[in-house]
Amino acid sequence: MGLKYGMIGGGKDAFIGGVHRKAIALDSTAELVAGAFSSNPEKALASGKELGVKRNYPTWEAMLEGELALPEDERIDFVVIVTPNHMHYPTAKAFAEAGFNVVSDKPLVHTSEQAEDLVRIVKEKGVVFGVTYNYTGYPMVRQAREMVRRGDLGKIRKVIVEYNQGWLATRLEETGAKQADWRTDPKRSGIAGAMGDIGSHAENLMSTITGLHISHICADLTTFVEGRQLDDDGNVLLKFDNSGKGVLIASQIEIGMENDLRIRVFGEKGTLVWHQEDPNYLEFHKLGEPMQILKRGNDYLCDAAKKATRIPSGHPEAFLEAFANIYRGVAEAIEARKAGQPLTEFEFPTVEDGTIGVRFIEKVVESSQSDQKWTEF
Amino acid sequence: MGLKYGMIGGGKDAFIGGVHRKAIALDSTAELVAGAFSSNPEKALASGKELGVKRNYPTWEAMLEGELALPEDERIDFVVIVTPNHMHYPTAKAFAEAGFNVVSDKPLVHTSEQAEDLVRIVKEKGVVFGVTYNYTGYPMVRQAREMVRRGDLGKIRKVIVEYNQGWLATRLEETGAKQADWRTDPKRSGIAGAMGDIGSHAENLMSTITGLHISHICADLTTFVEGRQLDDDGNVLLKFDNSGKGVLIASQIEIGMENDLRIRVFGEKGTLVWHQEDPNYLEFHKLGEPMQILKRGNDYLCDAAKKATRIPSGHPEAFLEAFANIYRGVAEAIEARKAGQPLTEFEFPTVEDGTIGVRFIEKVVESSQSDQKWTEF
Amino acid sequence: MGLKYGMIGGGKDAFIGGVHRKAIALDSTAELVAGAFSSNPEKALASGKELGVKRNYPTWEAMLEGELALPEDERIDFVVIVTPNHMHYPTAKAFAEAGFNVVSDKPLVHTSEQAEDLVRIVKEKGVVFGVTYNYTGYPMVRQAREMVRRGDLGKIRKVIVEYNQGWLATRLEETGAKQADWRTDPKRSGIAGAMGDIGSHAENLMSTITGLHISHICADLTTFVEGRQLDDDGNVLLKFDNSGKGVLIASQIEIGMENDLRIRVFGEKGTLVWHQEDPNYLEFHKLGEPMQILKRGNDYLCDAAKKATRIPSGHPEAFLEAFANIYRGVAEAIEARKAGQPLTEFEFPTVEDGTIGVRFIEKVVESSQSDQKWTEF
Amino acid sequence: MGLKYGMIGGGKDAFIGGVHRKAIALDSTAELVAGAFSSNPEKALASGKELGVKRNYPTWEAMLEGELALPEDERIDFVVIVTPNHMHYPTAKAFAEAGFNVVSDKPLVHTSEQAEDLVRIVKEKGVVFGVTYNYTGYPMVRQAREMVRRGDLGKIRKVIVEYNQGWLATRLEETGAKQADWRTDPKRSGIAGAMGDIGSHAENLMSTITGLHISHICADLTTFVEGRQLDDDGNVLLKFDNSGKGVLIASQIEIGMENDLRIRVFGEKGTLVWHQEDPNYLEFHKLGEPMQILKRGNDYLCDAAKKATRIPSGHPEAFLEAFANIYRGVAEAIEARKAGQPLTEFEFPTVEDGTIGVRFIEKVVESSQSDQKWTEF
Repeated sequence: MGLKYGMIGGGKDAFIGGVHRKAIALDSTAELVAGAFSSNPEKALASGKELGVKRNYPTWEAMLEGELALPEDERIDFVVIVTPNHMHYPTAKAFAEAGFNVVSDKPLVHTSEQAEDLVRIVKEKGVVFGVTYNYTGYPMVRQAREMVRRGDLGKIRKVIVEYNQGWLATRLEETGAKQADWRTDPKRSGIAGAMGDIGSHAENLMSTITGLHISHICADLTTFVEGRQLDDDGNVLLKFDNSGKGVLIASQIEIGMENDLRIRVFGEKGTLVWHQEDPNYLEFHKLGEPMQILKRGNDYLCDAAKKATRIPSGHPEAFLEAFANIYRGVAEAIEARKAGQPLTEFEFPTVEDGTIGVRFIEKVVESSQSDQKWTEF
Repeated sequence: MGLKYGMIGGGKDAFIGGVHRKAIALDSTAELVAGAFSSNPEKALASGKELGVKRNYPTWEAMLEGELALPEDERIDFVVIVTPNHMHYPTAKAFAEAGFNVVSDKPLVHTSEQAEDLVRIVKEKGVVFGVTYNYTGYPMVRQAREMVRRGDLGKIRKVIVEYNQGWLATRLEETGAKQADWRTDPKRSGIAGAMGDIGSHAENLMSTITGLHISHICADLTTFVEGRQLDDDGNVLLKFDNSGKGVLIASQIEIGMENDLRIRVFGEKGTLVWHQEDPNYLEFHKLGEPMQILKRGNDYLCDAAKKATRIPSGHPEAFLEAFANIYRGVAEAIEARKAGQPLTEFEFPTVEDGTIGVRFIEKVVESSQSDQKWTEF
Repeated sequence: MGLKYGMIGGGKDAFIGGVHRKAIALDSTAELVAGAFSSNPEKALASGKELGVKRNYPTWEAMLEGELALPEDERIDFVVIVTPNHMHYPTAKAFAEAGFNVVSDKPLVHTSEQAEDLVRIVKEKGVVFGVTYNYTGYPMVRQAREMVRRGDLGKIRKVIVEYNQGWLATRLEETGAKQADWRTDPKRSGIAGAMGDIGSHAENLMSTITGLHISHICADLTTFVEGRQLDDDGNVLLKFDNSGKGVLIASQIEIGMENDLRIRVFGEKGTLVWHQEDPNYLEFHKLGEPMQILKRGNDYLCDAAKKATRIPSGHPEAFLEAFANIYRGVAEAIEARKAGQPLTEFEFPTVEDGTIGVRFIEKVVESSQSDQKWTEF
Repeated sequence: MGLKYGMIGGGKDAFIGGVHRKAIALDSTAELVAGAFSSNPEKALASGKELGVKRNYPTWEAMLEGELALPEDERIDFVVIVTPNHMHYPTAKAFAEAGFNVVSDKPLVHTSEQAEDLVRIVKEKGVVFGVTYNYTGYPMVRQAREMVRRGDLGKIRKVIVEYNQGWLATRLEETGAKQADWRTDPKRSGIAGAMGDIGSHAENLMSTITGLHISHICADLTTFVEGRQLDDDGNVLLKFDNSGKGVLIASQIEIGMENDLRIRVFGEKGTLVWHQEDPNYLEFHKLGEPMQILKRGNDYLCDAAKKATRIPSGHPEAFLEAFANIYRGVAEAIEARKAGQPLTEFEFPTVEDGTIGVRFIEKVVESSQSDQKWTEF
């Protein structure tokens, strides 16, 4: 498409930076031309060199300055922020204020105030701002969303959404594992552990598919692994503003569970079931009829699901393609903005979605510390 | 085995009475010789005639009297109570007090007081008293219980147990469906709907496998179907006295879910997953090792699992065999009692297990009505 | 129902005799009143005593004589033959000729001549004669048969049927395992090993569901375990008389496969997939539509499937219930014969089905020894 | 890596060209700098323009000439051939003879003579030559291969490999569907239809995992869809040179089957099962032990499986990543050749593997037309 992007964070040893780069490369959505790949300038430069990036900056501040110094059409079209969580806010704020489009990893920022600040800046500056709640990029998630929207399920009564992992069942952060290290450190990760890292994905998946808004929350967070500073397990009861109910489970101590994000949506007319580890399928249970399994890549799917698909049914697509779909949506919005015809509907999670995610984390922690059953959302 | 039994309830139109009879017949565990098959004397006699029962009584009172009038060795060895819930207590009490062994359907009775009364009587009279929490009869449930007991999972951290059904997603009780009718009527069903009917099964399955005791409970019950008098959905957070946590979900409005009882037990060393609709398998996840699927009927299983199996692996066993295993355990205890050597360990749910189930229902309802987060169990 | 039956074979150490008895007991279809439970008279009598049978005979000849000596209404209504294969013919012949209804285990007999002899006798004497190809008793197999019959699949193009087992992957017959011993001995088992024991089940399942007739066959039988006298693995290409094609696989050396009987039927309009180890489900793929999974016990199923079901959907039924359904069909036919209104359609595998099974075994062996590709069936 | 490649075929309307490009882009394995994207020069140029390729040629001959005219270090490092089958040979031959490394789609060529000619040229010129039997790029296929190699299964007794599709169940080629059109045309597709298109994938998967060589073959090909010129279904019995047996099934008329490539490998000590539509898992059945499911991305896997993995377990990888792994292997070999240290072992299917595939197609067709049971391979 001819777009250019820069990256903050995501250097050597990082996991998610490479995922973003591959997802963008998959469709040749944009070219990586600039980067400040670490908070450590030496590491940053070394990583950029290894990646063969043209404009290799020691710090994100240098990158901001450097890009602004370029003629407008040579600058990056968007910046991708894949740092530990605590760096999302300052970087996103600075680049958005300077008029750059931004893609930030989730959770968006540490506090609702920061999030609302970003919402304000995005509105003022008219920039495109995406948050990589990547699981909503799966075609069958978009099919599910469409089926709810068009009423196939009737009014939604109940949602069970779970994100089960087991990789933190032992004190991995003591072994030098970088991913475990910062995720269990409140300074970098924020006030929540498992709930911030993956519970927020579960919330976003639920909100995206159902369109429901949480009205009340009752949370119980636990730290099972001794010495750990943040929750590694949480179970949450939910009330929605349509009077529906929900259960949200997120854990990183469930041995053998790998990346077991799954959702069940129960309506008055039918039920949908989707599972991230088996993402090409969507179960549909219609009252009184045989269960159906809808499969990616088939003609009977909705347009949004078809558009998010690259290869024929039976040739499985997976995590990276879903991630790439988020970037496709972002690129589409950026192209529209460049063309002076900004979009009003976005096929990617926005700064507003990210703000709900931040509030979710705050409210879960607040509720978990409360003796009161229900905390208003 | 030469045992004889009588049945209260379970006549025409009933579902569960036939299940009990088939389960007993499967192993020729006992012969049905007496019955009072309905609260309506005419229906009772008609049902008994159809079943070809020798001693056909119009009422359970007549049956009690009639059996007591017989020489001791001609009397029934045990009575099976398969009435709607409200009749469990008076019938169980009367027969147990008269020295008869009893098998009662679950939930045991309506109140903890009634339950404790039965516990007292059972102890005084020395009768055998089983409660048909039938799901604990599955061989792979017994395998799971053994694996927890022998420490394969280490200390249990978390349990997720669910009983998902959808058959009451509409107001079936208005259509003349007998099963729906009494289950949604507080007079006959008790203070809880879905939670009493199936939530209590979930509780018992969890308690049986893990041996954990609930210390606190936080419940949210809902009635989704308009006009219904009892809950048809409930979600519960749990604390265990070993400081573990739990989630218990029971619903009868989840369209397409049939009899989806499932449990996940997460320990410090591994995880077990079992699913009632696929009951011959047990998933075992051991830290750092490939996932295993243990299958019924294999040499590598524990004795209790092997003993509960009739046919070779791959020849699936199911619901009725599990039910029959409960009766095998009961019969074993009755034979031991007859032989003057009463057992001290029982391979079936006892009146004490039933009492916990009754308290569970009471506490769930209490918690659901409370603004306080945690209700002591 | 008040029927009485006797059993030949099926004493101590036997596997399948107990299965037959449990299957009959499950529905109280008939009462076991007579038996000659072993070819060894002492074992026979000991087994009969243990089973508490009233008329306990040392030999099947004594049983035939003894039963004939009784008043007609006291005699057994049918005899169940569960001996090793070589005894099927003499016993079935003798009892059928004497006017008794017969249920024989499969394969029916050793040769087509014997089979045709039985067909003739059955016709002459008007007796009911069932062969326990038990897998056709599963409700979802009957659903599949109905869907083919009513044209849901259009013309059948191809069938893949497999019966995969692994229990004979080592030379189990040398270890004293009775089931392995006679099944690998040509004198008792017949000319085929795996193909006779389980390949014939696969043939019957295919014929029952599809109604197709095999016209040509191309077989490759192998004995993998050194020293074994009969095939333990076989793969067969098939031509049907409707110009369809087929593949039939039967093996007992596939480690880890337990009782993995499965069938896929491909028609011009759709596809059916069924798996014995997961028997409550039937996959249906309709051209251009989402895959469906039909589940036992639901209203949308055909009458034959509903009639073969005892308990609600989600409460799994399995092997024994399917077996019991065969006996239900037999009992229905016997009752009709007793009432002087013999049936013309049978809901169980008949002596004619058994005859096709015998021919299948003969032709598979013949083809396997031939250099010619196709052997006429 | 700084490699450059050109592409022949794969323009507008093509399916597989885009897959190759995405697979190469995913890891930034090489940059697309040249192309002759269609046999129609106008389409070729239009496609190249759309793709933004630097050196856009109207024909492959022009591309060969053009590239050779460049200084050696500016030329493409390899050419990717993704034309219909009939163009594989002339293009591959021309480029290989000119010293270019080649990646060709499968089946390699139309005849064994052509294939052997390519083998000769590759040897003479020392070029790297890969054939995109892409399914061998899956990490769990490499795990399976390693487990066979290191003896986890013992001697292989039997293999069942299937490639089930349904997309040609109707006469799609008459509807203007380009993929169906050329695949059913013997001039472009070759002497086999389904067997050439997907049966050859099944053969390669089997050969790759097991290392076995086919010694004899017995095939039955069918054309089910009236008017179609090539087989759309085939079933093959196999003998291996280790005295093992096999069954290979390939079909494109099995409605509902999407891209259902699956393999079961049975050895004297264990069994492996893998399924392309669920590619992150590998079933392992060890004699007498619980079944295991090995999952991609875990530490317990072999090096080859780990090296073929990009993201953590539970974050599913799929078709494109497997494809990309083939290109990683090719790139590694090209880099080694450039460095003057050509590899002796290849982590991709070679021209020799492609030659076996061509012979497989020839022999299947020969056997299918023969009355003799076994055709020598």
